Amino acid sequence: MTLTTIGFDADDTLWQNEAFFRLTQDRFAELLAGHTDPNHLHDRLLAAERRNLGHYGYGVKGFVLSMIETAIEVTQGRVPASVIGDLMAMGRDMLAHPIELLPHARAAVEALATRYHVVLITKGDLLDQERKLAQSGLGDLFQAVEIVSEKTPSVYRTIFARHGSGAEQAMMVGNSLKSDVLPVLAAGGWGVHVPHGLTWALEHADAPQHHDRFHTVTDLGALPDLVDRLTQAHKD
Amino acid sequence: MTLTTIGFDADDTLWQNEAFFRLTQDRFAELLAGHTDPNHLHDRLLAAERRNLGHYGYGVKGFVLSMIETAIEVTQGRVPASVIGDLMAMGRDMLAHPIELLPHARAAVEALATRYHVVLITKGDLLDQERKLAQSGLGDLFQAVEIVSEKTPSVYRTIFARHGSGAEQAMMVGNSLKSDVLPVLAAGGWGVHVPHGLTWALEHADAPQHHDRFHTVTDLGALPDLVDRLTQAHKD
Repeated sequence: MTLTTIGFDADDTLWQNEAFFRLTQDRFAELLAGHTDPNHLHDRLLAAERRNLGHYGYGVKGFVLSMIETAIEVTQGRVPASVIGDLMAMGRDMLAHPIELLPHARAAVEALATRYHVVLITKGDLLDQERKLAQSGLGDLFQAVEIVSEKTPSVYRTIFARHGSGAEQAMMVGNSLKSDVLPVLAAGGWGVHVPHGLTWALEHADAPQHHDRFHTVTDLGALPDLVDRLTQAHKD
Repeated sequence: MTLTTIGFDADDTLWQNEAFFRLTQDRFAELLAGHTDPNHLHDRLLAAERRNLGHYGYGVKGFVLSMIETAIEVTQGRVPASVIGDLMAMGRDMLAHPIELLPHARAAVEALATRYHVVLITKGDLLDQERKLAQSGLGDLFQAVEIVSEKTPSVYRTIFARHGSGAEQAMMVGNSLKSDVLPVLAAGGWGVHVPHGLTWALEHADAPQHHDRFHTVTDLGALPDLVDRLTQAHKD
């Protein structure tokens, strides 16, 4: 096979992200413990996030607004302003949180950057994603950074046409079957799933069955070998 | 002169934007009328916006979070949750507001798109800017759309190298001297100011004195002629 470009997802593929959302949700549940039980609160928050996605898009700012909305909702408008102030402070903490790289992230990107176009493709708030990339120390390894509002087959086609030779000669690597794998397969490319223990409920999807361009690796350490095997296979 | 690329700012250059922020701020002042006078409230909101810019970046979501923060602050934490709910509803209204094109916007972009690369270059929330462009009906006229977290000389250099032949053969057109004109001049390009009656306080800057690549037009209707004159001048 001919491969020219490898796209990497960022959050929970190169560095921890969902873990910070979970910690914040736990604190959210503590703050509202007197008003509602944690499971119910979680369901209402998820419903608010789903409802607001078309307005706010992905990222921390929309998450904070959805937490505030949920806090007002579950308390029937009795939540004190101090709690809302706490929720905003939690959001600012998330936006300032140091980056924790996932195992083998740097080594995998470094190894593949010598032979392929490597591109970071991520959703979320523009400024926050740029901050995280800068802090990760991986910024110089990527030939391009694409922060997009949604990851669809057509978005992948456009990006891989811009950086390389089209989706059919491109691979996307990420933890979300829904955003990183399925739409790339639909666009004609390779999709490599790197499962992460924690995945946001709105990113859940079933793995494709028997798709010859779909692969899974347990962590990024296994990615360079997988790429070697795939590119060799078609040379033999 | 040789000109290959023309960049257009979006908000308050192609369509109304600040006017909706002002309307929202007026409603914000009404909601908090019992707690503080409008001038003081406006100053505190602006201070919050300035303080939060490094966390939230530009756009409606950060503006709503700054309004909520200011409401808590000026009421010493006594603002009722219902008012905060109203502020969030105002934010969602802004994110759904129909686009109002500014005079000659379509005609100017159409005329110039036949002879130059035309690129939309804007700050703000990714999803919201994409929505506004789609709704404006101008989307197909632009060869590229660049939504950036900040408009610096280096950002303009990168964009004009990607779409055309570099900043020295590029022009940026917009209503903000601070974001659309000064950094492009610093990058070596042409800067065309199209003043808009309403400009956000954080976008204020003084016009450059005697810069031969700086021009002003009263509206976009005058832009194609200006471009003709500039490109002819160096041919003669």
